[in-house]
Amino acid sequence: MDEQLTAEPARARRPSGRDAKRASRAARAAASIPYITRSIPVFEVLGEEGLATLEHNADTILEEIGIDFRDDPEALEIWKAAGADVNGERVHFARGMCRELVQRSAPREFTQHARNPARSVRIGGKHTVFAPAYGSPFVRNLDEGRRYARIEDFRNFVKLAYMSNSLHHSGGTICEPVDLPVNKRHLDMVYSHLKYSDKAFMGSVTAPDRAADSVALANIVFGPELDDPLTGRPKTTIINLINVNSPMTYDATMLGAAKVYARANQATIITPFILAGAMSPVTVAGTVAQTLAEALAGMAFVQLVNPGAPTFGTPEPALVLYTMAALARRLGVPFRSGGSLCASKIPDAQAAFESANTLLPTCLAGVNFVLHTAGWLEGGLAMGYEKFVMDVDQAGMMHTLLAGIDLSPNGQAIDAMREVGPGKHFLGCAHTQANFENAFYRSPLADNNSYEQWEAEGSPDMTKRANALWKKMLAEYVEPPMDAGVDEALLEYIAKRKAAAPDSNV
Amino acid sequence: MDEQLTAEPARARRPSGRDAKRASRAARAAASIPYITRSIPVFEVLGEEGLATLEHNADTILEEIGIDFRDDPEALEIWKAAGADVNGERVHFARGMCRELVQRSAPREFTQHARNPARSVRIGGKHTVFAPAYGSPFVRNLDEGRRYARIEDFRNFVKLAYMSNSLHHSGGTICEPVDLPVNKRHLDMVYSHLKYSDKAFMGSVTAPDRAADSVALANIVFGPELDDPLTGRPKTTIINLINVNSPMTYDATMLGAAKVYARANQATIITPFILAGAMSPVTVAGTVAQTLAEALAGMAFVQLVNPGAPTFGTPEPALVLYTMAALARRLGVPFRSGGSLCASKIPDAQAAFESANTLLPTCLAGVNFVLHTAGWLEGGLAMGYEKFVMDVDQAGMMHTLLAGIDLSPNGQAIDAMREVGPGKHFLGCAHTQANFENAFYRSPLADNNSYEQWEAEGSPDMTKRANALWKKMLAEYVEPPMDAGVDEALLEYIAKRKAAAPDSNV
Repeated sequence: MDEQLTAEPARARRPSGRDAKRASRAARAAASIPYITRSIPVFEVLGEEGLATLEHNADTILEEIGIDFRDDPEALEIWKAAGADVNGERVHFARGMCRELVQRSAPREFTQHARNPARSVRIGGKHTVFAPAYGSPFVRNLDEGRRYARIEDFRNFVKLAYMSNSLHHSGGTICEPVDLPVNKRHLDMVYSHLKYSDKAFMGSVTAPDRAADSVALANIVFGPELDDPLTGRPKTTIINLINVNSPMTYDATMLGAAKVYARANQATIITPFILAGAMSPVTVAGTVAQTLAEALAGMAFVQLVNPGAPTFGTPEPALVLYTMAALARRLGVPFRSGGSLCASKIPDAQAAFESANTLLPTCLAGVNFVLHTAGWLEGGLAMGYEKFVMDVDQAGMMHTLLAGIDLSPNGQAIDAMREVGPGKHFLGCAHTQANFENAFYRSPLADNNSYEQWEAEGSPDMTKRANALWKKMLAEYVEPPMDAGVDEALLEYIAKRKAAAPDSNV
Repeated sequence: MDEQLTAEPARARRPSGRDAKRASRAARAAASIPYITRSIPVFEVLGEEGLATLEHNADTILEEIGIDFRDDPEALEIWKAAGADVNGERVHFARGMCRELVQRSAPREFTQHARNPARSVRIGGKHTVFAPAYGSPFVRNLDEGRRYARIEDFRNFVKLAYMSNSLHHSGGTICEPVDLPVNKRHLDMVYSHLKYSDKAFMGSVTAPDRAADSVALANIVFGPELDDPLTGRPKTTIINLINVNSPMTYDATMLGAAKVYARANQATIITPFILAGAMSPVTVAGTVAQTLAEALAGMAFVQLVNPGAPTFGTPEPALVLYTMAALARRLGVPFRSGGSLCASKIPDAQAAFESANTLLPTCLAGVNFVLHTAGWLEGGLAMGYEKFVMDVDQAGMMHTLLAGIDLSPNGQAIDAMREVGPGKHFLGCAHTQANFENAFYRSPLADNNSYEQWEAEGSPDMTKRANALWKKMLAEYVEPPMDAGVDEALLEYIAKRKAAAPDSNV
């Protein structure tokens, strides 16, 4: 029986005292937990009536307006066979058709396996997984300013993510290694994730054969135990970002990659790419309905290609985010969104305000997979070294928030108040001594010293302290162990594939 | 009949589409709305069982441990007469006694009148009021760094708050004018609020006679219409911050000021002053129970002094904040907390992360009166000019968040999607044209330009842009009109009081 289909529903119950205690202990011990399991409720902005209206509107879009599936005759055949109304490349769907396809077979939650089993992540339900930012052509640091990213930067960020306890995932195209040819750089990226980290990672989506390479490389590492005895299906070892050409259009590149991954039982995140007012109406309710319609069509397509293959949906501004998360729960699929997003070019106060105003709603909304948790600058154009460790620090705080409130007798602390009483202080009392160590999240970057001490240290701002931290981390990095035969097989596969075609930048 | 007692309960209902539309229109038109009325639900972390446990613990503290009321024999007499168990200065309360005193007569919500009636604020229920930060001895700006505050700074911040549409209140001791004697500076502060702004403000609490001066000055301005025909009571024109000497102790200064204000039907915010681990146990549940116990004793005391006088409670970190807000709703009193708090010395990324991580929970928790919305640095030691306008900008965004989602047909925007269709863009369509203007909050400080343009402008960080903004605002400031006779009367009162005693710095 499929564990993925029988997993408990995503609906949050009120956490019990025991849950809270366990979670808070985990968060504190948290040297390293593989992923977060929330102990606080989700925040919802709309009630039943509002959510039902938006679902109705998504069905109206799918039925009346339809979705284009471009330059992929096989995709149109698949839809025709499923009973959709196909006119040229435009596909119209009967009300409820996409929803039913998704709910029939898409897992509510699933495990993405990491090469270190202790670091495998659960995607969906009450779980939250933090991953680095994705897709920047530039990097920025305090020493060099902004420049094009190179494969060495890519490796650095894989190492930093590996060392960051509050990131649970290695991410995907953390930055574009523009010093390598476009048609081959995916091999070096996937290799870096597999070699320099043991956390779960994301594959290439820029062409179907690059998706196939990603699967092949992962299979070399996971080879001996490729099937998951719990699900009776191939293990899901790669998550992949499938962009919609919003509005309401899928193109052949993304459809090709989605088919490769779905057939290998690898997970697809269907990601409407929407800037409200450009790719969608300029209102929240309009944007949400369109996003849902686009994601439904993509997820339903994945289920037609391989029923049961993990797939889930996405987006961003806080009100959209709260609402989409609620709609994903109603649909019964995991939800990807948010992160530490900002438009600022540098890791200044603007970057921090904007990032916090995305990351906190991300966590309160109950997002399951948080791409772009760390490093994001300039709307995704640049990956910041200082921003990366600053964001990781914030992700650590979110662990404490999501662990909720300890209502054990020790947490209630009535005896401590009896011991101390009015007008005294709690600094030396037994309860404080016993709990102080783990009571607060300790930021490695926030300066909470006196003004005088801070001044004596040269009045550094947070960016300066972050600069010192990432350098220290890279200096202390130690590679996770990898079987020499596996490494050899990976390098051999890569060498063969690189030799098979000339370098190209398309 | 007392409007304040019959006002609708604070419990949030699911907002209807019409509410959301109205609120979102208001937020957009919001050139200037007098206060926020939320259209989104509040966020609660604990359920009934957890909240009831914490209420039970607060009663245990009040019954078994008790609260000290120091150096104020009248306060002890008041408690004795009410039936409390008074031993020396320690007062013990039967279970439920304080709660019953508060619920019997404290208003669930009330109006604080401003001298410009269009700017009067509603405190409590679904309303949120933003006020500047409070109490810093230092100011900081980019040009001068950090230095002691002067009365000129105080006036500057009153003017900036007056000009800031997203602040609804003028605040109180925005910074300490240390160039004026301690025993007289309250006169200049209250005058500045009355003269340079027409928004509601806060009085002095540092001595009972300074509280009396605050009431006298306000009465000069509100004199002709001192009674509120709606409540049959004196108008509430001043809100005042009454600190508890945590743990579990009230001192004569604060009790004296509280009595003056309560007897004049002015509002008191009972504020436990708690740093967990020092003035309370180091756990969330312990801190919450103690905070509730302290606040209950103070609010019950105010109700004994003058039943019906507005009074409400307070605190800070996100989990404490969500929980205390829920407990205040259950008790049926308004709730003060939060703001844009941070430990950072400068308005850098640390300041912004920390401020956003307090302001957003403040808004989601449903805080009614938000002191410290703007300017806070260094844990309250410094008031920042740049930080002030940065925080005001963030407060503006919160207006948009709290306005919720427009579910009108225009908000749903189905016709826009019909018009545009797959693969096209929405930039030029009629719906976007009609809605673009008001669709987003527009930050005066965030830089969303291209990298190249930002670089051409000298790569300014947010602090630099904020420096230009507050200077521009002060240059453009125009005083609100005030009757010349009233101004004369204020100055005469102040001159007489200043002549009545020698300058003193205690």
